[in-house]
Amino acid sequence: MIEKIKKVLIFSDIDNSLLLDQINKQRISVRTFEKGSFILHQDAEYDSLYAVINGICYSDMIDVSGKNIKIDDFQNGELIASGILFSCDNRLPVSVIAKSNCEILILDKKAILDLCMHSEGFLLDYMRLISDKVTFLTKKLLFISFKSIKSKLASFLVSKIKDDKDYISIDQSIEDLANYFGVARPSLSRVISDLELEGIIFHEKNIYTIIDKTKLFKLI
Amino acid sequence: MIEKIKKVLIFSDIDNSLLLDQINKQRISVRTFEKGSFILHQDAEYDSLYAVINGICYSDMIDVSGKNIKIDDFQNGELIASGILFSCDNRLPVSVIAKSNCEILILDKKAILDLCMHSEGFLLDYMRLISDKVTFLTKKLLFISFKSIKSKLASFLVSKIKDDKDYISIDQSIEDLANYFGVARPSLSRVISDLELEGIIFHEKNIYTIIDKTKLFKLI
Repeated sequence: MIEKIKKVLIFSDIDNSLLLDQINKQRISVRTFEKGSFILHQDAEYDSLYAVINGICYSDMIDVSGKNIKIDDFQNGELIASGILFSCDNRLPVSVIAKSNCEILILDKKAILDLCMHSEGFLLDYMRLISDKVTFLTKKLLFISFKSIKSKLASFLVSKIKDDKDYISIDQSIEDLANYFGVARPSLSRVISDLELEGIIFHEKNIYTIIDKTKLFKLI
Repeated sequence: MIEKIKKVLIFSDIDNSLLLDQINKQRISVRTFEKGSFILHQDAEYDSLYAVINGICYSDMIDVSGKNIKIDDFQNGELIASGILFSCDNRLPVSVIAKSNCEILILDKKAILDLCMHSEGFLLDYMRLISDKVTFLTKKLLFISFKSIKSKLASFLVSKIKDDKDYISIDQSIEDLANYFGVARPSLSRVISDLELEGIIFHEKNIYTIIDKTKLFKLI
């Protein structure tokens, strides 16, 4: 069991004796899930911390139109929804589904609290993990809220420029980018066309060539 | 000093002996700021936890166009930027400015860690505080990302309906609402007009009268 727990990054440096104590108190367990099965359901209360030991799972949510939207992947060693565990409103905004056969580590909330109180390193790591989510979400929200689509696209392209090359390869589809920017896909497509008409970029498939870097920087 | 610390809600239940220990280690201090002065600067590193003992302060940020946008108020007893303190990227996305003369409690990061390790109640409260920010931001982000403006407005109005009344009084201006929804003000105004033309709502100043509740619910 100790070996399995240590596969999860955040537990890798904890003293075995602390983990053994939690195992003896039956606060840590392992469950397996078959490919395609639900690990956690949207709107269910999240009372124990889930972490992936083996396999891959993903979170998805049902949007207003009833369409399923894939949100995130969770790989070996990653925690699931760690930011929600201690929240007053601990209902999951997403479902978590096994993409392959999965082995999942499940720890009681009390186990996490005990580990925090007995290992300053773990406390700091867990605090950092949740706080990183706060800063990530805050930045994303400010990005989405306070910029025009043109300015968002310009900021995004500039952030992807590498080694002063004048072309950028973007992995996401225009639909993915529109979701990331929090805008409608047709609106984003229109802005891309506008930038092309203004001679600032040229776009073909997933390759964006920067023609006028100065003008692009001015849009940020 | 103990009395001042206890004014901050999250510290009110902690044993005096634990607080005295931190005071003796010189990890807790109090500073005063005059009305209008900067308490914290946008982009500065946030290494100690700030909390309001007396007075009111507010956070604001400079947007891409150089315009100042007011984000939040902090009142007596509230923590400032508690979600950022333990983040890897602990630079403040906002400035914090004294709205009145302010008395501010400042605690080293190490004081917070020590209090967490010696008081399970405090650990749980602090975890809950950061986690509540994660759930609040996640919900807001999902709300902004996955809904049309019409659907956002409908959800917002429905959430404000009280006691089955058919009118709603909204404190925020259309500009505030547009910021909250992460959309441009003219776009939101257009959607409000659309709903009026469709005979779903009637809007005058800050009062929104629901004319066709069934149609409004269908927009969510």
